[in-house]
Amino acid sequence: MSASRAILADLLTEAGVAVDGDHPWDIKVSDERLFHDILLRKNLGLGEGYMRGWWNCERVDEFIFRVLKTGAEERVRDSWRLLAKALPALLLNMQSLSRARVVAKRHYDLGNDLFEGFLDPYMQYSCAYFKGMDGCADPLSDDKSSRDLEEAQRAKMRLICEKLELAPGDRVLDIGCGWGGLARFMVEERGCKVVGVNISKRQIEFARDFCAGLPVEIRETDYRLLNEPFDKIVSVGMFEHVGPRNYGEFMDTVARCLKPNGLFLLHTIGGNTTSRSIDPWISTYIFPNGCLPSVAQVSRASESHFVMEDLHNFGPFYDRTLLCWLRNFRRSWPKLRGKYGDRFRRMWEYYLQSCAGAFRARDIQLWQFVFSPAGRRQPECRMG
Amino acid sequence: MSASRAILADLLTEAGVAVDGDHPWDIKVSDERLFHDILLRKNLGLGEGYMRGWWNCERVDEFIFRVLKTGAEERVRDSWRLLAKALPALLLNMQSLSRARVVAKRHYDLGNDLFEGFLDPYMQYSCAYFKGMDGCADPLSDDKSSRDLEEAQRAKMRLICEKLELAPGDRVLDIGCGWGGLARFMVEERGCKVVGVNISKRQIEFARDFCAGLPVEIRETDYRLLNEPFDKIVSVGMFEHVGPRNYGEFMDTVARCLKPNGLFLLHTIGGNTTSRSIDPWISTYIFPNGCLPSVAQVSRASESHFVMEDLHNFGPFYDRTLLCWLRNFRRSWPKLRGKYGDRFRRMWEYYLQSCAGAFRARDIQLWQFVFSPAGRRQPECRMG
Repeated sequence: MSASRAILADLLTEAGVAVDGDHPWDIKVSDERLFHDILLRKNLGLGEGYMRGWWNCERVDEFIFRVLKTGAEERVRDSWRLLAKALPALLLNMQSLSRARVVAKRHYDLGNDLFEGFLDPYMQYSCAYFKGMDGCADPLSDDKSSRDLEEAQRAKMRLICEKLELAPGDRVLDIGCGWGGLARFMVEERGCKVVGVNISKRQIEFARDFCAGLPVEIRETDYRLLNEPFDKIVSVGMFEHVGPRNYGEFMDTVARCLKPNGLFLLHTIGGNTTSRSIDPWISTYIFPNGCLPSVAQVSRASESHFVMEDLHNFGPFYDRTLLCWLRNFRRSWPKLRGKYGDRFRRMWEYYLQSCAGAFRARDIQLWQFVFSPAGRRQPECRMG
Repeated sequence: MSASRAILADLLTEAGVAVDGDHPWDIKVSDERLFHDILLRKNLGLGEGYMRGWWNCERVDEFIFRVLKTGAEERVRDSWRLLAKALPALLLNMQSLSRARVVAKRHYDLGNDLFEGFLDPYMQYSCAYFKGMDGCADPLSDDKSSRDLEEAQRAKMRLICEKLELAPGDRVLDIGCGWGGLARFMVEERGCKVVGVNISKRQIEFARDFCAGLPVEIRETDYRLLNEPFDKIVSVGMFEHVGPRNYGEFMDTVARCLKPNGLFLLHTIGGNTTSRSIDPWISTYIFPNGCLPSVAQVSRASESHFVMEDLHNFGPFYDRTLLCWLRNFRRSWPKLRGKYGDRFRRMWEYYLQSCAGAFRARDIQLWQFVFSPAGRRQPECRMG
């Protein structure tokens, strides 16, 4: 047995994970190079090893959950490597106007067939709201999970409408509007008029089609260029791509465009601590230049413009959302296989499961913030 | 007319306030020295002028609300004076172990008869929770307001119990337990065992008496000296006295004393922006060394220990709470007059009303935060 294998097997034992064991969360290793690569390249080695098929695991989410929960990961990390990884973020504005399009091209433009293959009918690519819905034993095998997801995504959109006190005729700005699902919902359910902004060409095409005939305008533009008044502003699952250097400008933009009597809802994944780094595997393969904000970063960036009315953490629902997506993805795979190939399948499965495990371990969070311009009457935020 | 009067009258006009006008929020000036003193000494001159009887106003709360809301105050402030005021806080730890007792002696030890004169039967000297209760046209004249306050303070304590998921037998730490009202409530309603810590001798006497025969231990000690495990920790209306230099140590203490499966609820007034200064009049006459934290400060101090599960802003209920207190205070005054005197009455009336106006203008906030140690199952915080 190699030294690398011995070191890693020891660490994993602390997390209750065995190499070549029989639990669903144990890992089966078929290529011994994996161990050396993980020690050298941490998460990147782990994720790439999975993509290459060097290891397998029945429940990657449970494996990741155990690793994060016991903090074994802390000991695998070398601080100098984290620093090296964080350096580009310190030196460059990774989300400048020109760089912002990278994630649009590399992720959101992957193909609408892919996202249609695992999302709900409103194409909500963000955490669903399962409050009050029965848990199912296992979203991966329960046939109800697809319907559950659809219902919970509607509940999420309804929650947003309520927190924003949307009323007929409200002119709403949706920053990073995805495939237009929320825009359409706000029109159908609340009689609003919506402007959605986006920089992903595939999403824009889809959104324009999805909202055809409705008072929804989908604009291809960077949010920073906006300068016109709106009654309400919402941004769901987009702040993760903004980057710490731009949090201030993001909030300046919202403040510039929000009427004095308006409300702003920010829905974002967050990190437990203030940092400029992100999981290197996620950054390399899934979301280039992404970064998870901390509450301190969000509040610091917003405090000169807004009163924070409410912070609602429902991260554990993202775990369930991701498992519903994984089940849908697996069922859709036969249609997608020809176009995307097996390496992509393994990458996508690892992405969905490792994120589910991270939410389960409470390593990352899902927050909805409600902000109001100071001086406005307080909104009622506590219906959720 | 003096130049000072002309300048101030102009500023006040912008806020919709007239000098010697007829609205309840207009001010009647009986000593012209007021104007010069306000220009020189800002809030301190304004508050002291009121205490001296240099000016009067039927509704000081509405006057303050209008001033803050229009931001006229911004123009009255000289930045060099604010700096001078903030300097001691930059140079000294105003809430060191030895200085922490100043506010205990100067405020909380004023006399239990005073606080019994305006608080509810559970002696809750913090924001009540009026959710779902009918508004009354004017808490100052409505005879229902005393009963309303009592009900809303019970609702606040119940809300805290629910957010903390208090269960029979839970050992709870109450940091800065006031007169023991919440400790007693947690025992009566939830069957908990409570340790309350406090440094105000008068409060401690009262609390021991108020909780006699119950599993409540009231300790005279600084919170920083604690080092023993608790199932749940709560701190209500005490963080305002902690001071920015000690936020980290406060959170370290909570983390040290909270079991891994525990929960921590922090209830505090907050400021919209990160700052080390406080209203100089409040600091001089009401709460020596007090400082209102921002969300950024609370989150920065807590992020290495806790997941922020929930932030609930109900500042507007403090406006109503303060008016209920003011009505009670006025009705109790005949019993208190002999001991406290007229200058104190004017000081206290100004304090309660100026704070009510500041909450109404959304210049300050009331937050309940729920924190959990990372890795714990998420609590259900959204019942409030």
